[in-house]
Amino acid sequence: MNIAVLGTGMVGQTIGTKLVELGHSVRLGSRSATNEKAEEWSKKLGKNASHSTFADAAKFGEIVFNCTSGMVALDALRMAGAENLARKILIDVSNPLDFSKGFPPTLSVCNDDSLAEQIQREFPDAKVVKTLNTVNAMLMVNPSLVPGEHDLFMSGNDADAKVMVRTILTEWFGWKNVIDLGDITTARGTEQLLPIWVRLMGLFKSPQFNFHIARAA
Amino acid sequence: MNIAVLGTGMVGQTIGTKLVELGHSVRLGSRSATNEKAEEWSKKLGKNASHSTFADAAKFGEIVFNCTSGMVALDALRMAGAENLARKILIDVSNPLDFSKGFPPTLSVCNDDSLAEQIQREFPDAKVVKTLNTVNAMLMVNPSLVPGEHDLFMSGNDADAKVMVRTILTEWFGWKNVIDLGDITTARGTEQLLPIWVRLMGLFKSPQFNFHIARAA
Repeated sequence: MNIAVLGTGMVGQTIGTKLVELGHSVRLGSRSATNEKAEEWSKKLGKNASHSTFADAAKFGEIVFNCTSGMVALDALRMAGAENLARKILIDVSNPLDFSKGFPPTLSVCNDDSLAEQIQREFPDAKVVKTLNTVNAMLMVNPSLVPGEHDLFMSGNDADAKVMVRTILTEWFGWKNVIDLGDITTARGTEQLLPIWVRLMGLFKSPQFNFHIARAA
Repeated sequence: MNIAVLGTGMVGQTIGTKLVELGHSVRLGSRSATNEKAEEWSKKLGKNASHSTFADAAKFGEIVFNCTSGMVALDALRMAGAENLARKILIDVSNPLDFSKGFPPTLSVCNDDSLAEQIQREFPDAKVVKTLNTVNAMLMVNPSLVPGEHDLFMSGNDADAKVMVRTILTEWFGWKNVIDLGDITTARGTEQLLPIWVRLMGLFKSPQFNFHIARAA
């Protein structure tokens, strides 16, 4: 499958690499077609890995991963272009973390709105599914790095898109437990997990942990 | 020990009952000294259970539990009186959930502040420890209702107060895992767990679940 990964940071490269390893053709998108990190990445990964602008990558992908930083995600998606996102599954991995006032970061949108909802509102023809945003990049594509039971969350308005995303998460990435929270407004809940996530990371001095929801039988 | 429990709702009654069962003297506080629910409760529980105004209960308690609804917590604590809270451990169980705009509720304070911090700022001589706010009332005092590993969080500025609260949580209430997140600002993280908590409760149609933080070895 042809897949677009928008964002050339650790999250974009990690997801892109995993998808290439699975045999997919991946185009990494960034502001510039000559992004150095993306060029290195695609050279290293070989013929199924390419890189280009946000717009060209989005056009290429049958599915689009948004792995940009949350503070610039809407801008990046505007550059990708509504027409290149229409009718496609847009997997939103980003978190609206604002580090401009130092640590701990705050959320640039939360409580009665979320970045996922902002994206869905601005790109109504895309099928936005929020997921993977509550775990570290390495864990996203290798959940067994954390032993035992732990869970991933998923939010989105389109039921068919969530069926496909569940397949990607379980069969491609190896997740055992994916909790479908409901429509895209439930992404408020997962984006608001970040404030405790960053504190736990500081406490554990490691990002290799995850939430598990323990339930009464 | 003489303990004040402010709030006569399900949380206050459940914690108050558990403390009486453990042999402590508990005074339930409410706006009025003749609150019917509190009267019924203290009649049922016997001689170690009493009820009165917020101020009289707070004066009575060597330790104070704030189990009022988050939207009125600051008002209730003002009625309790700064002089009756000074130098005492104030265990803040409340969540700033605003249901006035329907479901899902929003948080009346979050992101760059928290209810726990508001309380600590307004009552600087109290030793505020935020905990128990991420679980259902029944689970608070009976964690084994949810099987397996699951965690409670704790936030506060006073190290000695947190040692005492950890004892209350583990030895009195039966919690195995209590994660000290750090100072009172970390309560932002646990209060912001509520948006996903209310969605999970809707999904599971049960409040008997809890967060566990799974970690790499």
